Amino acid sequence: MTAMSGIALIQGASRGIGLQFCKTLLQRNPATTVIATCRNPNSAQDLVQLKDSNPANLHICKLDVTKEEEIVGVSKFVTDSFGRLDLLINCAGMLHPSGKGETSLRSVDEQGLLSTIHTNAVGPLVMAKMLSPLLLNGQGQFGVTPSDSGSAHCGIIANMSAKVGSITDNGLGGWYSYRMSKAALNMATKNLSIELGRGRRKVICVSLHPGTVDTDLSRPYHKNVPNLFTTEYSVNSLLQVIDSLTVEDSGKFFTYDRTELPY
Amino acid sequence: MTAMSGIALIQGASRGIGLQFCKTLLQRNPATTVIATCRNPNSAQDLVQLKDSNPANLHICKLDVTKEEEIVGVSKFVTDSFGRLDLLINCAGMLHPSGKGETSLRSVDEQGLLSTIHTNAVGPLVMAKMLSPLLLNGQGQFGVTPSDSGSAHCGIIANMSAKVGSITDNGLGGWYSYRMSKAALNMATKNLSIELGRGRRKVICVSLHPGTVDTDLSRPYHKNVPNLFTTEYSVNSLLQVIDSLTVEDSGKFFTYDRTELPY
Ligand SMILES: NC(=O)c1ccc[n+]([C@@H]2O[C@H](COP(=O)([O-])OP(=O)(O)OC[C@H]3O[C@@H](n4cnc5c(N)ncnc54)[C@H](OP(=O)(O)O)[C@@H]3O)[C@@H](O)[C@H]2O)c1
Ligand SMILES: NC(=O)c1ccc[n+]([C@@H]2O[C@H](COP(=O)([O-])OP(=O)(O)OC[C@H]3O[C@@H](n4cnc5c(N)ncnc54)[C@H](OP(=O)(O)O)[C@@H]3O)[C@@H](O)[C@H]2O)c1
Repeated sequence: MTAMSGIALIQGASRGIGLQFCKTLLQRNPATTVIATCRNPNSAQDLVQLKDSNPANLHICKLDVTKEEEIVGVSKFVTDSFGRLDLLINCAGMLHPSGKGETSLRSVDEQGLLSTIHTNAVGPLVMAKMLSPLLLNGQGQFGVTPSDSGSAHCGIIANMSAKVGSITDNGLGGWYSYRMSKAALNMATKNLSIELGRGRRKVICVSLHPGTVDTDLSRPYHKNVPNLFTTEYSVNSLLQVIDSLTVEDSGKFFTYDRTELPY
Repeated sequence: MTAMSGIALIQGASRGIGLQFCKTLLQRNPATTVIATCRNPNSAQDLVQLKDSNPANLHICKLDVTKEEEIVGVSKFVTDSFGRLDLLINCAGMLHPSGKGETSLRSVDEQGLLSTIHTNAVGPLVMAKMLSPLLLNGQGQFGVTPSDSGSAHCGIIANMSAKVGSITDNGLGGWYSYRMSKAALNMATKNLSIELGRGRRKVICVSLHPGTVDTDLSRPYHKNVPNLFTTEYSVNSLLQVIDSLTVEDSGKFFTYDRTELPY
């Protein structure tokens, strides 16, 4: 690893969009270091296979984002191994423990709300807390290259949100747990952008909407989606957005095509 | 109780703004029926004292908004006793279990986030779920009197939110748990307004910001507040807002002076 290669941590990398981020980051630049976290490394076959082709640069760590002690463990691993981080992508997410968003109040229940919010909003914020010292020590290897003139950044936090997490944009209702969790996550992004944008060293924090993407999460709804994205297309687009970020973008909510969404 | 007197349920009525809603509602119209819920009726002295002066019209029920079974119990009580509800005000709330909002990531912890979100967002939504059949059977005794012409409503849900729960308006950061919980609550309000605004019978759902009010919740910050409201002033103002509501207002976020806040 040279001083000029990026270090990225993808949280929720066993499948779907998170797995694709690992693949694409390593394809784009084989010198990139990727720390891929997932709940059950043993059963994350695609990720283990990716490790076979990238033995030196891909590091798989066990991490359930709802377990604070596992987050502490991974942040210790990154500190000891690399001492810095350039990009954190919080990817893990679920619609509801049942696998389907609530269609009406009838299907709303306390435990479903709590566990969805835990995974989708509370976990990502605890990740940001634990990894922010490493990001504040980053080299800004993702986003617009920091220059001496103008405002620079040392790291990026990208929280995988969803357009349905926009309260302003909500015209259909339903999906109570998922929508509430993503609204809470968006508030976390905004708060992080303020706290981590104050000092001389800055971490850019954004919420991203990946489009509707062909993954397990969206599977129950695929037949209603005219224009379902492949994970490759979505992740390529999201990485273009990430590549374009400057500190002025911190605290914003972007779609895959860099449209800004209202909160 | 005549057919033309309102039935209101105030959730979180032991102290502060919730207690004041009970007092003011009974003062304004002694024929109003108030169901006041709190976690520990035995220690809610001011509420018990209010009951002494309003023995027939004030009903105190034990309800911890984080206990789904207690919400079921109270909704059964209201069903059996009145068969309808005109107004639900979700008032219970906290900044953080420590009593103070987080000033930085250092003080962010998983359990604080979860319990704040449980009380401030998940509980109020479960309340709305359980009481919505009663609100859909309401007589619209609060808000602009339903007329035959124009769109009518049968009930109102007012969720006590906070200006700091606006993601768009957030310029200072901090208070992670509280801000995230109120953003999630605001999404619940928006979702409820859609689901309960679909049928012929409609429930108006709004988020309200009471101003900065002289209560235990805001006590740690009183010395920094130039214009601290009394609970009387805040609740009078909020009831004027509630009195003015029509179905066109459903899904919105209003301050005590009826300014609309962005989400
Ligand atoms: N797909 C879409 O259309 C779409 C649209 C908008 C937003 N998004 C967002 O994009 C992100 C990725 O979604 P996806 O479509 O890639 O979903 P996916 O294919 O279903 O993958 C979900 C990922 O989250 C992980 N996960 C779930 N709970 C976890 C926990 N407690 N701890 C750690 N990991 C956990 C899963 O791990 P396991 O393998 O261990 O279960 C899996 O890696 C999510 O935040 C989602 O909300 C997706
Ligand atoms: N005061 C302000 O400046 C201000 C500003 C913006 C928004 N608000 C909002 O206004 C609402 C009322 O706040 P307040 O100022 O009146 O606060 P408060 O005086 O501290 O009263 C809080 C109330 O919430 C109840 N509560 C807390 N946890 C509960 C639970 N798990 N189950 C049931 N009840 C619970 C308390 O009951 P116990 O007595 O049992 O503890 C108490 O009745 C809150 O939602 C708050 O966020 C207040």
